[in-house]
Amino acid sequence: MSLAVSDAAADAALVEALAAIVGRQHVVAPGEDQEPYVVDWRGRYHGRAAAVVKPADTAQVAAVVRLCAERGVTIVPQGGNTGMCGAATPDASGQAVVVRLDRLNRVRAISALANSITVEAGCILQTIQEEAEKVDRLFPLSLGAEGSCQIGGNIATNAGGTAVLRYGNTRELVLGLEVVLPDGTVLDRLHALRKNSSGYDLKQLFIGAEGTLGIVTAASLKLFPRPRVSALAMVALPEIEAVLTLMGRLRSAVGDRLASLEAMSRGQIEVIAEHVPDVAIPFALEAPWYLLIELTDTLAATDLRTPLEEALGAAFEEGLVTDAVIAESGAQAEALWKIRHSVSEGSKRAGYVVSHDSVVPLENQALFARNVERRIAEVAPEARIVMHGHIGDGNIHVLAILNPQQYPDAATAAPMVARINAVVDDETAALGGVISAEHGIGISNRVRLGRVTNPAEIALMRRVKALLDPAGLMNPGKVLPPEA
Amino acid sequence: MSLAVSDAAADAALVEALAAIVGRQHVVAPGEDQEPYVVDWRGRYHGRAAAVVKPADTAQVAAVVRLCAERGVTIVPQGGNTGMCGAATPDASGQAVVVRLDRLNRVRAISALANSITVEAGCILQTIQEEAEKVDRLFPLSLGAEGSCQIGGNIATNAGGTAVLRYGNTRELVLGLEVVLPDGTVLDRLHALRKNSSGYDLKQLFIGAEGTLGIVTAASLKLFPRPRVSALAMVALPEIEAVLTLMGRLRSAVGDRLASLEAMSRGQIEVIAEHVPDVAIPFALEAPWYLLIELTDTLAATDLRTPLEEALGAAFEEGLVTDAVIAESGAQAEALWKIRHSVSEGSKRAGYVVSHDSVVPLENQALFARNVERRIAEVAPEARIVMHGHIGDGNIHVLAILNPQQYPDAATAAPMVARINAVVDDETAALGGVISAEHGIGISNRVRLGRVTNPAEIALMRRVKALLDPAGLMNPGKVLPPEA
Repeated sequence: MSLAVSDAAADAALVEALAAIVGRQHVVAPGEDQEPYVVDWRGRYHGRAAAVVKPADTAQVAAVVRLCAERGVTIVPQGGNTGMCGAATPDASGQAVVVRLDRLNRVRAISALANSITVEAGCILQTIQEEAEKVDRLFPLSLGAEGSCQIGGNIATNAGGTAVLRYGNTRELVLGLEVVLPDGTVLDRLHALRKNSSGYDLKQLFIGAEGTLGIVTAASLKLFPRPRVSALAMVALPEIEAVLTLMGRLRSAVGDRLASLEAMSRGQIEVIAEHVPDVAIPFALEAPWYLLIELTDTLAATDLRTPLEEALGAAFEEGLVTDAVIAESGAQAEALWKIRHSVSEGSKRAGYVVSHDSVVPLENQALFARNVERRIAEVAPEARIVMHGHIGDGNIHVLAILNPQQYPDAATAAPMVARINAVVDDETAALGGVISAEHGIGISNRVRLGRVTNPAEIALMRRVKALLDPAGLMNPGKVLPPEA
Repeated sequence: MSLAVSDAAADAALVEALAAIVGRQHVVAPGEDQEPYVVDWRGRYHGRAAAVVKPADTAQVAAVVRLCAERGVTIVPQGGNTGMCGAATPDASGQAVVVRLDRLNRVRAISALANSITVEAGCILQTIQEEAEKVDRLFPLSLGAEGSCQIGGNIATNAGGTAVLRYGNTRELVLGLEVVLPDGTVLDRLHALRKNSSGYDLKQLFIGAEGTLGIVTAASLKLFPRPRVSALAMVALPEIEAVLTLMGRLRSAVGDRLASLEAMSRGQIEVIAEHVPDVAIPFALEAPWYLLIELTDTLAATDLRTPLEEALGAAFEEGLVTDAVIAESGAQAEALWKIRHSVSEGSKRAGYVVSHDSVVPLENQALFARNVERRIAEVAPEARIVMHGHIGDGNIHVLAILNPQQYPDAATAAPMVARINAVVDDETAALGGVISAEHGIGISNRVRLGRVTNPAEIALMRRVKALLDPAGLMNPGKVLPPEA
């Protein structure tokens, strides 16, 4: 009881000190409505916080971090709270301060000439896409949560999405970073430079580190010429090997114009057809694999349709493709994309989803898909196994959908989830892949990471963590596997 | 004397121990012909080595590094020895072991499907370009030394070149790395994965570290669809601002087809015309700036000439361009590229060259060029100031060519070189740039790096160095500024 009291006193003192930095109205204290900040969006992790603090700028972030460092208080950085692995959720101890970046939402600079934009960490991804469009440029990062995720979180997880094939993942889009280190010092590597061979490229440390090495407060990002024309097709294929062969042919035929290649298994589309009523499937579901192909070009006069038709025609002759729909209008293109974008919603409604984010070398992609399907069926015969994803990147999301009656909640599902993860992770490692392509590690995957990663690598990651965050206050319990 | 004897004895013992790992014929001992390995190609640094050792594979590299670690012997990794800043040259103490990577020259894997190639560090850049071509793909890294530089060195310096505008610099081309750490352990991050968000991306530490954190022994690299058509023009412009405006217009007009943009000041071309007799200049040298523009496309049917002519036509109307030559044949294109490629040779023959590798944000490029020209003229009125380089990347090489009679050697030139570097570096830093875009730091630029870099950054670089190489045995005296 007295402990609880002294805890409460300590919390009150902390809230007061944080309020002195950001203003009381920007601190959410225990007892106030912290719910939006202490539960991940999938509802899988429920934590507590000593305080949720919303700094207005980099200086306030630095001051908050210094305060926490002085008091030995742990910090959980949080952007849009759309992460897939719980990296932005505090633990249940109620000891951590959640640092929300929402208010760092300024566009500091944009240059069509330099093809670059400098934004603060709290900028919504979609806002950055729109700002780029205003100067006739493209910011290519595109993913399901783009309407609410923040660029700081995208950088922290090295987010992927549907444009990686053409433009690379988030790391490749970052020109410069501004980071608040765990001791509160600000590392300014924000220059929007295309080339830099002037000593160690320190900013790389913080990309994909999920807030465990520091807090990204701003970034300079690459912009690209805007595509002016596009062509979209959905094709049916007799086997996954055909998907990869077709991809090779398309690359030779149209080169960089290949913007997106999104594969879906028939089962995945069936799940959507069953559970997302307003999605139209404009073809019979007779083939085992379907592929969404998008070509884009920055030159308005370019004819994309002819090379696409020619490539698909040749693929028909060879038996690589058994059916194809080419979008005749923007509306038709949207309808085809809607199928792809309904994947999460449809799967979630179909049952308890055990999803995976493995990436393997492309040559092993087909073998990976076949092996995991067989091995999951062995450990979970009742599971519905469906797949979708960025096949051009070697990143197929394998979903095992469990019967919701049999597995009503995470606790009940846990043992089965562990068995399924184990076979998928073993296949991933055996085929030279890694378990997370674009979602990150967070809380969800740290044990799995430790199980399949070379101990020398994990040891070096721990040393890097200890170097930058010796007190272990920055997003503890995330990314790195639990100590044995 | 006895000291010398014991040194000799120590050297002999070391040579014997190294020979036990790689074979005596792959060790060059003191007294044998070490000259090719202890002098940089520009002849500015002359060192000595306790031994030059040529391991055959990664295991032998690891064994050599372990041996040196046990004996406290320093290591200088060396590839093709074509570096611009002395990073691969041992110091004069004769204590270091030079580790040559020549014999690690195997192509381990190549995949047109996955657009990737896995090569050992000793592979010549041009060999990798040729291997890619054999499978109808492009490895875009391209620079003057490509016929003799090795990919390990390109990675160690994060090399740039003439294709960065379109394809990015070396860091952006690396998918995976195999590295021997300073303690001899092998870090295998060689997987050719397009996406990876599975913990810290450790390989990034070694790219651009110039061998100070470990030895790169192999790499997985990106390949691209091969361009099938190209169009080349050389245009004359009335001022540097016009170069940048034209670049913006070209980007909006042809987007990604803009493959190379290489600017040269009139003075730079005059230097070539005077000193490289077999180079033809097919236009009158009346404008202050000249720009080489290359468009490429992966689709053979694409008409690049029309959009190029249209863009240049519009530029004429606006007065952005005062003269233009469009290559009518491959031979004409080669002739125009030959002007650009004769820059180093011509400048070297013209006098004592003080060259710079600054990169600034593109918006500041014009101001940078004007300011450095003025300020160099103030400190060195007799210097001939010429410029060339990758203007699309913000990376103009500013050369001050000193009278060879007045400055016959480096020692005589040193004080003037320091004064010129100081003004260039001050302008670079003031305009938000860094002093090395693509050449690296090595020995040449470490004092300069310390002078213009935020102390917090240098401090963190030192901590990273101490973490990975606590004994300081890996390429000491390179990159990091001397301790105050």
